[in-house]
Amino acid sequence: MDVETSRNLAESDFDRRLVQRLMRYVGNPHISIRLWNGDEFQVTEAPPVACMHIRERRAIFEMLRTSSVGFGECYSKGLIDVDGDFLAFINETTRAYTRKRARSYYGPKTRSLLYALRPNTPVRSRHNVHHHYDLGNDFYRLWLDERMVYTCAYYDTPEATLAEAQVAKLEHVCRKLKLLPGQTVIEAGCGWGALALHMAEHHDVNVIAYNNSTEQVAYAREQALAKGVDDRVSFVLDDYRSIDQRCDAFVSVGMLEHVGLANFSTLGAIVKRCLKPDGLGLIHSITRSHSDKTDPWIVKHIFPGGHIPSLREMMAVFEPQRFSILDVENLRLHYARTCATWLQNFEAAADTVRDMYSEEFVRMWRLYLGGSSAGFQSGTLQLHQVLFAPYGNNDVPLTREYQYSDSKGT
Amino acid sequence: MDVETSRNLAESDFDRRLVQRLMRYVGNPHISIRLWNGDEFQVTEAPPVACMHIRERRAIFEMLRTSSVGFGECYSKGLIDVDGDFLAFINETTRAYTRKRARSYYGPKTRSLLYALRPNTPVRSRHNVHHHYDLGNDFYRLWLDERMVYTCAYYDTPEATLAEAQVAKLEHVCRKLKLLPGQTVIEAGCGWGALALHMAEHHDVNVIAYNNSTEQVAYAREQALAKGVDDRVSFVLDDYRSIDQRCDAFVSVGMLEHVGLANFSTLGAIVKRCLKPDGLGLIHSITRSHSDKTDPWIVKHIFPGGHIPSLREMMAVFEPQRFSILDVENLRLHYARTCATWLQNFEAAADTVRDMYSEEFVRMWRLYLGGSSAGFQSGTLQLHQVLFAPYGNNDVPLTREYQYSDSKGT
Repeated sequence: MDVETSRNLAESDFDRRLVQRLMRYVGNPHISIRLWNGDEFQVTEAPPVACMHIRERRAIFEMLRTSSVGFGECYSKGLIDVDGDFLAFINETTRAYTRKRARSYYGPKTRSLLYALRPNTPVRSRHNVHHHYDLGNDFYRLWLDERMVYTCAYYDTPEATLAEAQVAKLEHVCRKLKLLPGQTVIEAGCGWGALALHMAEHHDVNVIAYNNSTEQVAYAREQALAKGVDDRVSFVLDDYRSIDQRCDAFVSVGMLEHVGLANFSTLGAIVKRCLKPDGLGLIHSITRSHSDKTDPWIVKHIFPGGHIPSLREMMAVFEPQRFSILDVENLRLHYARTCATWLQNFEAAADTVRDMYSEEFVRMWRLYLGGSSAGFQSGTLQLHQVLFAPYGNNDVPLTREYQYSDSKGT
Repeated sequence: MDVETSRNLAESDFDRRLVQRLMRYVGNPHISIRLWNGDEFQVTEAPPVACMHIRERRAIFEMLRTSSVGFGECYSKGLIDVDGDFLAFINETTRAYTRKRARSYYGPKTRSLLYALRPNTPVRSRHNVHHHYDLGNDFYRLWLDERMVYTCAYYDTPEATLAEAQVAKLEHVCRKLKLLPGQTVIEAGCGWGALALHMAEHHDVNVIAYNNSTEQVAYAREQALAKGVDDRVSFVLDDYRSIDQRCDAFVSVGMLEHVGLANFSTLGAIVKRCLKPDGLGLIHSITRSHSDKTDPWIVKHIFPGGHIPSLREMMAVFEPQRFSILDVENLRLHYARTCATWLQNFEAAADTVRDMYSEEFVRMWRLYLGGSSAGFQSGTLQLHQVLFAPYGNNDVPLTREYQYSDSKGT
């Protein structure tokens, strides 16, 4: 064996041990590893669900430095590849990583609190929203359902398609709120307007819907005109902090994740101010089974300013205002399926996305959609719908049967 | 006007102003006041719902010193009487008092935390339980339903009687837990055993039920023999901290109120240890719309060691163990009705209770039952059923339709 070969072998052995150390850190997922030099090995003895192909040596050091951002950026740039089923790979690594960390509680809780020190001002919120939601309606149209609903669907039957499950979700929210014709509903963070339009069309209510995203509001206004409900729905291009009307129902689907812990009590005070004493409110948000900071790669590349609360943290919206929590439902597995379907649609349109943006963008979004699905599948991420009423409102449904029977309940 | 009359008038004017000050403190309820000297006046201009008859002057000073304990003790001793509808009186004063205090949040929250500094040790828990639950089964039989269920009923139809609503509650809990024949259920704090017996009889499961109360366990064991389910139900006279079996379902109905904030994470760890990874758990507890210490009169005379958490505080049971909250339901108005019915039954048996104990005992319990109903009616008190699963359990129902349809769900 000449000196060159011997040095290569020693180096390879060192690299392998570095990777094994990294894998221990992420909880030894059942995957295999292929290095740039062709060296291939399994992390555990269990059959690997897929292979992580590390194409360049520096990817190891990036991941050792910061596991989440390191992996995310290296995967996006193509320094790392996944051979085999991408979703299976990301599910398995997420499962292993979260199981490894299942015992830590106070550390993550403290990190979550520290997050609150950088509150989202209205200007920063606008910037954050612009970063994600103003990527272009053409982009989102490629993989969302026809109504452009970019939140967790509700598969009320296992056979439901994504489009059907999104309509079921809109209707599930409306039922919970017990909307009556002629009522006024305020929506905070309305996306492309699907819920606002559905409420106006099918429940004959007046909707005032707030959103910070220029592109989304433009689209939503067009839709209102096209559906002939523009007399009943007004889309306001503004921050939730500007809400100053009174309403019978307050609803917010998928906005709380962008509000930030430090502003939860502000949001609560705004809801308190606008919701009539006999009204009902619903906040639908991604949550965590325990407090933690949001994944650093997600914050850096996907959702700047985002923070996913635990249910306990979410109570900071309600308790200072003494709202009564009527009903909390967890739709975690629905969101795992929703994200998996989005990823499927996204993959089918990957060539178009590559032409619109870049290969790096495609890989980044693949990781984001797959990672989200894996988060919900593993249980790290959850989706809670919280129905609430102002303190002392006794005009609330006695049972929840009305949400499931065909009658509108009493 | 002679000197005596003039001094009497001046004194009476002073007393009236003291009472008015007290009434401002409790939020000016729509009641009238009658003093020991016959002086009578309304607190507000609205028609009074009932009259508070202050029979002795010292009652005013007792209430000025400590409003809750002062009123409670003076009412119990007969220094204060209520002329008119007692429940209407207590509802109105509770409504006024809580509305007056609706804006304070951090003060009560801190007081609630300070409460946690005196944890309930097993010995203290046994003493606390003995104080309330060992008053004698004969006493509770006078006003509870035939199954001796001493927790919130579930009026699934408005016409339901108390007995029917208690059975509906037992069944509602069983449905949520999706019990299957042959499974093992652990119950923490089983009262007189109604739920444990119902589960064994109607769902064919094995139940291990813990309770610290000698009288209750003796009664429950008799019932198990009488119903022929003693092979499937074992009642253990011990603290929840002694639970060491494994189970498919964990359930606790109305015990958390006695656990005390400081022991919430201990309870969570015990549940985590005993519940199988694919199991489900349910904790049913009185909660508050916001954190606060428990009423001092209640702690002194009715429930020593008791602490009613807010939903946020209750999360201290679940989040350190990363339990996934599947479903939270608020049965507040059901409990207002349950307590009102208990009060009715209690009044019908008041003579018997007086013979068993004393007039003071009758008045104390009238205030406790009426005050509880008023707490739920006003919204200060709530009743939350929290259904949860161990972290990563994906074998959970996708929708909650199974709780309301006749099928047992999928």
